[in-house]
Amino acid sequence: MSRRIRITVAYDGTDFHGWQVQPGLPTIQGALEEIAAGLEGCPVHVAGSGRTDAGVHAHAQIAAFTIRNPIPVDNLRRAANRLLPPAIRVLHAAETDPNFHPRFDAIDKTYRYTIFREAICSPFEWRYVYHHPYPLDEPAMIDAAPRFEGEHDFTCFAASDNRDAEGGSKIRTIFESRLERLPDRMIFHVRGSGFLKHMVRNMIGALIEIGRGNLSPGGLDGFLCGRAPGKAGPTAPARGLALVTVSYPARATLRQ
Amino acid sequence: MSRRIRITVAYDGTDFHGWQVQPGLPTIQGALEEIAAGLEGCPVHVAGSGRTDAGVHAHAQIAAFTIRNPIPVDNLRRAANRLLPPAIRVLHAAETDPNFHPRFDAIDKTYRYTIFREAICSPFEWRYVYHHPYPLDEPAMIDAAPRFEGEHDFTCFAASDNRDAEGGSKIRTIFESRLERLPDRMIFHVRGSGFLKHMVRNMIGALIEIGRGNLSPGGLDGFLCGRAPGKAGPTAPARGLALVTVSYPARATLRQ
Repeated sequence: MSRRIRITVAYDGTDFHGWQVQPGLPTIQGALEEIAAGLEGCPVHVAGSGRTDAGVHAHAQIAAFTIRNPIPVDNLRRAANRLLPPAIRVLHAAETDPNFHPRFDAIDKTYRYTIFREAICSPFEWRYVYHHPYPLDEPAMIDAAPRFEGEHDFTCFAASDNRDAEGGSKIRTIFESRLERLPDRMIFHVRGSGFLKHMVRNMIGALIEIGRGNLSPGGLDGFLCGRAPGKAGPTAPARGLALVTVSYPARATLRQ
Repeated sequence: MSRRIRITVAYDGTDFHGWQVQPGLPTIQGALEEIAAGLEGCPVHVAGSGRTDAGVHAHAQIAAFTIRNPIPVDNLRRAANRLLPPAIRVLHAAETDPNFHPRFDAIDKTYRYTIFREAICSPFEWRYVYHHPYPLDEPAMIDAAPRFEGEHDFTCFAASDNRDAEGGSKIRTIFESRLERLPDRMIFHVRGSGFLKHMVRNMIGALIEIGRGNLSPGGLDGFLCGRAPGKAGPTAPARGLALVTVSYPARATLRQ
């Protein structure tokens, strides 16, 4: 009798080559598939809610896999955490609907991007923030951030190797896009139906260009039609980005 | 005209082989001496307030060196931070008394040791805490912690390779020794006139033995006479330890 297991996973992406399995390189999916294969005695595919790039972190990535091993889910979680490197933790494991798919069933995802604004970045934080201590028109950035909300063609915010790819709409809906100022940093909160490769990092790149005075709010709108040439700004570094939550409809909630 | 420069340094010790220079290995002192030598065009000795072990962190280690280069101290700090790895930051630099020595002039040092008590340790925290989720008699540990206060012979809390070394008193004075319980962790705050190699980690080892019921408060007092055989407990892992502050008398305060 096969069982579909849903797990919530947190990771520090600094020392991994992203989510997706790559032969010979440490990846999050690769580490999880190794654990699952060890339990099952044969290769097991672990599906994620989406790929995170090399260096990107997750507070609650959602993944799922199917096994026949009858191990109780709490034991599975404990065994996984004993075997995984400390930079990857399984926060929760539960049996779920046999058809549950973390990517196709997701309603929305929330990401957070942190721009650290002080002159000196703590040695205990540099892995998790983009250190940008230079002058920026922060009120203009805060004003512009909600312009990403709504349904837009995000072609100009896709990774260059992905931008002109055939097939697959580049239209996405952003439900929330907000830039918050804390005493020592700016935090970008963004929730959307889905995200293209590099999309959040390119949104940050565009907001920083606005902060530098190189892009106007109207110019940003031009890039949101999907027909502008080039990109709205440089791709911000991966280390400032973290996947915070993934939401699912009630039908995909846990059975037990 | 030579100038004595005093710097305040923070570091994540995880990826370093401790403070002290070791040929061919990354150390904090080694990284700082490389920067100072680059400024000066010849080898420069950087003295620290004390050696931290491999894996131990510092929020405000104090160091000093002598150079002839007339570079303003703020430029020196910025240049150092451009050249150092992000896990080491110079927080402050100032010209000081030509005779200032960070070790010999120190009045006291404060360390903090963190024991993380929840079942799952965040991937963003594991470098900075000792993850010990097992049962402990925490009230007994909290009660016992102040027994370290006062003047004691800490021979039983010295590193084994240091314990029977000739010369150098093992008597130290502890001004504060307090174990604090936060919702998810215990934090040991200790301030003393000086610390032997591994001393704080061995104090934590003893407190954990008390928490396990393997050592009584009276037994702990026996180890504080310096004449008990063996150690009061195992040496706790380096990663939970951080040097927090070093204090100096007024005469060693900054000249500008």
